Amino acid sequence: MAELGPVHPTEDAVAALGPLPLTATTVADDSLWGTWLRRNAVHTLPHCVRQLHASGAVDNLRRVTGEVDGEFQNMWFADSDVYKTLEAAAWQLVHTPEDLELRSFLDTTAALLVKAQGEDGYLNSYFTVAKPEKRWQELHWSHELYCAGHLIQAAVAAARAGVGAEIVTVARRFADLIVERFADVNAVDGHPEIETALVELYRVTGHRPYLDLAARFVDLRGHGLLNPDRFGPVYLQDHVPVRQAEAVAGHAVRQLYLLAGVVDVAVETHDDELLAAANRLWEDAFGSKTYLTGAHGSRHRDEAFGDPYELPADRAYAETCAAIASFQWNWRMLLATGDVRHADEMERVLHNAIAGSIAADGEHFFYSNPLHLRTGHDGSHEDAPSQRLPWYSCACCPPNLARLMASLPGYAVTTDHSGLQIQLYTAGEIETTVDGHAVRISLRTDYPWDGRVEITVTTDAPLTLALRIPGWCRTEDVRLDGAAVDPVGGYVRLRRDWARGFTLTLDLPMPARVVRPHPRIDAVRGCVALARGPLVYCVEQADLPDGVTLEDVRIDPSTVMVNRTSVVTLAVAGSVRSADTELYPPAVDETAEPITLTALPYFLWGNRKPGPMRVWIPLS
Amino acid sequence: MAELGPVHPTEDAVAALGPLPLTATTVADDSLWGTWLRRNAVHTLPHCVRQLHASGAVDNLRRVTGEVDGEFQNMWFADSDVYKTLEAAAWQLVHTPEDLELRSFLDTTAALLVKAQGEDGYLNSYFTVAKPEKRWQELHWSHELYCAGHLIQAAVAAARAGVGAEIVTVARRFADLIVERFADVNAVDGHPEIETALVELYRVTGHRPYLDLAARFVDLRGHGLLNPDRFGPVYLQDHVPVRQAEAVAGHAVRQLYLLAGVVDVAVETHDDELLAAANRLWEDAFGSKTYLTGAHGSRHRDEAFGDPYELPADRAYAETCAAIASFQWNWRMLLATGDVRHADEMERVLHNAIAGSIAADGEHFFYSNPLHLRTGHDGSHEDAPSQRLPWYSCACCPPNLARLMASLPGYAVTTDHSGLQIQLYTAGEIETTVDGHAVRISLRTDYPWDGRVEITVTTDAPLTLALRIPGWCRTEDVRLDGAAVDPVGGYVRLRRDWARGFTLTLDLPMPARVVRPHPRIDAVRGCVALARGPLVYCVEQADLPDGVTLEDVRIDPSTVMVNRTSVVTLAVAGSVRSADTELYPPAVDETAEPITLTALPYFLWGNRKPGPMRVWIPLS
Repeated sequence: MAELGPVHPTEDAVAALGPLPLTATTVADDSLWGTWLRRNAVHTLPHCVRQLHASGAVDNLRRVTGEVDGEFQNMWFADSDVYKTLEAAAWQLVHTPEDLELRSFLDTTAALLVKAQGEDGYLNSYFTVAKPEKRWQELHWSHELYCAGHLIQAAVAAARAGVGAEIVTVARRFADLIVERFADVNAVDGHPEIETALVELYRVTGHRPYLDLAARFVDLRGHGLLNPDRFGPVYLQDHVPVRQAEAVAGHAVRQLYLLAGVVDVAVETHDDELLAAANRLWEDAFGSKTYLTGAHGSRHRDEAFGDPYELPADRAYAETCAAIASFQWNWRMLLATGDVRHADEMERVLHNAIAGSIAADGEHFFYSNPLHLRTGHDGSHEDAPSQRLPWYSCACCPPNLARLMASLPGYAVTTDHSGLQIQLYTAGEIETTVDGHAVRISLRTDYPWDGRVEITVTTDAPLTLALRIPGWCRTEDVRLDGAAVDPVGGYVRLRRDWARGFTLTLDLPMPARVVRPHPRIDAVRGCVALARGPLVYCVEQADLPDGVTLEDVRIDPSTVMVNRTSVVTLAVAGSVRSADTELYPPAVDETAEPITLTALPYFLWGNRKPGPMRVWIPLS
Repeated sequence: MAELGPVHPTEDAVAALGPLPLTATTVADDSLWGTWLRRNAVHTLPHCVRQLHASGAVDNLRRVTGEVDGEFQNMWFADSDVYKTLEAAAWQLVHTPEDLELRSFLDTTAALLVKAQGEDGYLNSYFTVAKPEKRWQELHWSHELYCAGHLIQAAVAAARAGVGAEIVTVARRFADLIVERFADVNAVDGHPEIETALVELYRVTGHRPYLDLAARFVDLRGHGLLNPDRFGPVYLQDHVPVRQAEAVAGHAVRQLYLLAGVVDVAVETHDDELLAAANRLWEDAFGSKTYLTGAHGSRHRDEAFGDPYELPADRAYAETCAAIASFQWNWRMLLATGDVRHADEMERVLHNAIAGSIAADGEHFFYSNPLHLRTGHDGSHEDAPSQRLPWYSCACCPPNLARLMASLPGYAVTTDHSGLQIQLYTAGEIETTVDGHAVRISLRTDYPWDGRVEITVTTDAPLTLALRIPGWCRTEDVRLDGAAVDPVGGYVRLRRDWARGFTLTLDLPMPARVVRPHPRIDAVRGCVALARGPLVYCVEQADLPDGVTLEDVRIDPSTVMVNRTSVVTLAVAGSVRSADTELYPPAVDETAEPITLTALPYFLWGNRKPGPMRVWIPLS
């Protein structure tokens, strides 16, 4: 089982595609992904470990064992931050097994978990230290199964990475207790996560009761089992049975984590109705409730999805964890269906919402990821600050980023019986086997800055290589070895005898694109955004002359210049509105001064001095 | 003192204008205001009384006296709903002293308060019944002084209306306890209200310690005295000293209630610095943070003001109580400064945000007042439903409406040493004295449906009559007895000897107006709104043909037809966008079918079947 990545459907699952082992893909150091992976290993992961200790999250577990005194610190679900960091450490050790500090964190924490686990298998520092009499009594708000789910995910990572065997033992003991406790009880957790975790644990262990309980948890939602308390059933994902749901709603992370579990259950139990529900909700989410950056969550209140087409740029909640959840959901949908649109959404959310949530230094993070930071922004809310912060009192996002980045290479390529599918482009090497035959693929590219990809394939048997043609790419311009391609369903599929080491050159042209919003999106009417390749661009105050306010800037996108330095920026004609006016004038007479605007990739914003930013620019 | 209305600065106050007694103005029954006053007396006030009993708010006070058993019900500050309804009853009894049911409510409740009050004067059913050990210990969240403030406001109304003398006794005893407890302690309440209440009690009693404590409460804010707890200092109005504040921020009702108290303190203590702060915050609020309907509060989260120009139509929180608070703050500013812009804002918020928050039946209410209800709206939040509700678990708004409507006639006219100022137009009669001379003014008008106002003035001494020329009115079109007028500072001032009963005819032309948003308001860019006179208009789904979705409607405002039936509606050319498109297309090619749109006054929306509505319509 060693060295498999996250989300490995079993042989029995009904899935169109399968993942490759984590070690199959080596990302080139000097690629954009390469810098992200290195930054994650060298900065983000050690930073998370330090913060877990500094914030008291690790000490909470030591309170259970009696090593530390004092009251429980932090959010009541802070155990999950420890587990997510453990998961990240496990994935990371696949790539850097020589990282002794990380291995020490993993082993020490694993030993702590062994010690902290109760006789009966229960493990939750908050309910053990602070509320022992309430164990399992407040599931709408306790996050007990949510925390258990992240423990299980850490264990699955450890099992697949071949490290920290104790974590697997602890997680199985707890999972067995959960099965015993909930197999015949009508109860669900207010925060989904246990569903996908139990399916993954089933995949690692083959123990069917885990899968059965996951399926049960999915189907028990929407029957009013949760005490709606402060937030109500929509927030808690208890307002409608999943099979009947027509629209994504409520707390975005809860909704998207649930949907990841729904797909996992559907493929392992051959449940077409459940997969159809996931598809229906996907259509709703990506048809009217997704930001241009791939982010989700239009409302700060309840961190929630909004009404259809309610997509304010300035008040985008667009939580980092929701973006990661969308990536995870789409990965499961891609494996289940083979539909290219899921790879498109993975690429979009990864390169924009997710990549933008972390600072260039790897140690500062956004919790919400707006598409417009206003001049005069009230940054007093910790989760909507004016710049990235090193940590949060609710610290769900940073270790979530760490675990995604540590497992990122595993999402680039998929396999089926006849070949390989290149889903996400990055420079690097792929070494794997297909149908028992060794395959080696080398990708040379400067993606996402440039759309040329040179692909050398070496294998001793016929193999179908499928190359994804991204949705942002107009297919009539795509060329393979200089000839126009004819993609089917979003892929160019090549079946050849590659024995002698074939080299192909794929050209995905990357002109700057002018993107318009759907006419029902009121929030950005009269605006356009710039994009190039998979990247969304933005304009920052830092690039404007002194005295110009970002909200007065207008754009004339008829010509856009592409500038390549270490990154690709765009230059575009614009103007600055100079007429001041009352708040609701009978008419607006604007005068405007011409200006040249610089747009930079959204994921890089906020790495200079803090200041306003916007993705959608009003047309002049 | 009997029969004075709310907010009567003392003789010593530095105020440009004074109010008339409540009985001075009689509103014509068949005017719009007349229907509102009658509806308030016949429907809203009795409905509030019924709901106070049904919801358990009155029973909480009976729990204090031992008449009722069981646990405290409702919000912990529900006493304030009882007090606001008492205040409304007192104002109402000025106009309908023969209303025996209302008098019975007032007398019974007054007797209950006498019985419920503690030996030492303390009165708060929640802290007496449920948390006696926490009295005064949780001021950031307890609302104890907030509730006390509403008790005092009820007492002030009772004193001025000459009813319910026991309420005055109870309130003074409590106020004396508060002075004793807080005169030398650095503490404030997390919800302002006590400030304006204490100044008004000082005005009724002449007891200076009330004024001194109010001034102290104002100046103690912004020094970190409140435990920020869940919401933070901005929400609680504790982030900056009032004198240094540059911008309105945080919870809108808290901010605006505080500002009412600030003006009251400033005029009674001759504090120019404090009044200047109120003026500065007024400029900020009305320059960049006010909805076209006069409403305030751009964010559901924290029920708060937003960043400058952050004014989403769909997610407008625009709480009813904030609109009422704006009316009250502007009334105080008008009296303090005589500046016409405050009367303009009173008129705007009254005829749009406030009037729209209550159903035609007088018994259903909005808590938030959006300017756009989307197709597919998630109405699962009690305070942002898809239609008006009969009551709320946090029931602050309905009794607040009742007390405003019951005192409405008192806000139409002001006085100064030399004459009267007609501030808000309605058909009716004014009988008062100026400088010892009886004055009788008769106003015949169909305002706000028609801008012609016939004014007959009779008095036996020279008098300056000032007629407000509304800000929505282009002054070059205004005529007085057929001749163009020359207003100064927003008023036409006529000093005459009116002895023989002069009749003037003021013509305020009311063409339909096309209103544009400030270019920095992203949320409604590319849209216009229709207005006529003081009324903002909207388009409702109920007036569209079957199969047309409101979000696809476009407007061509080049010609607007005015239709007068029982109300004035507008007809305007528009179109329906028919092209469907992806969420972020490279280009949008729209085809459109012509349509004639009906717009009706915003305040009347939602009185037919529930459905989408919008004030701002995209231009075709």
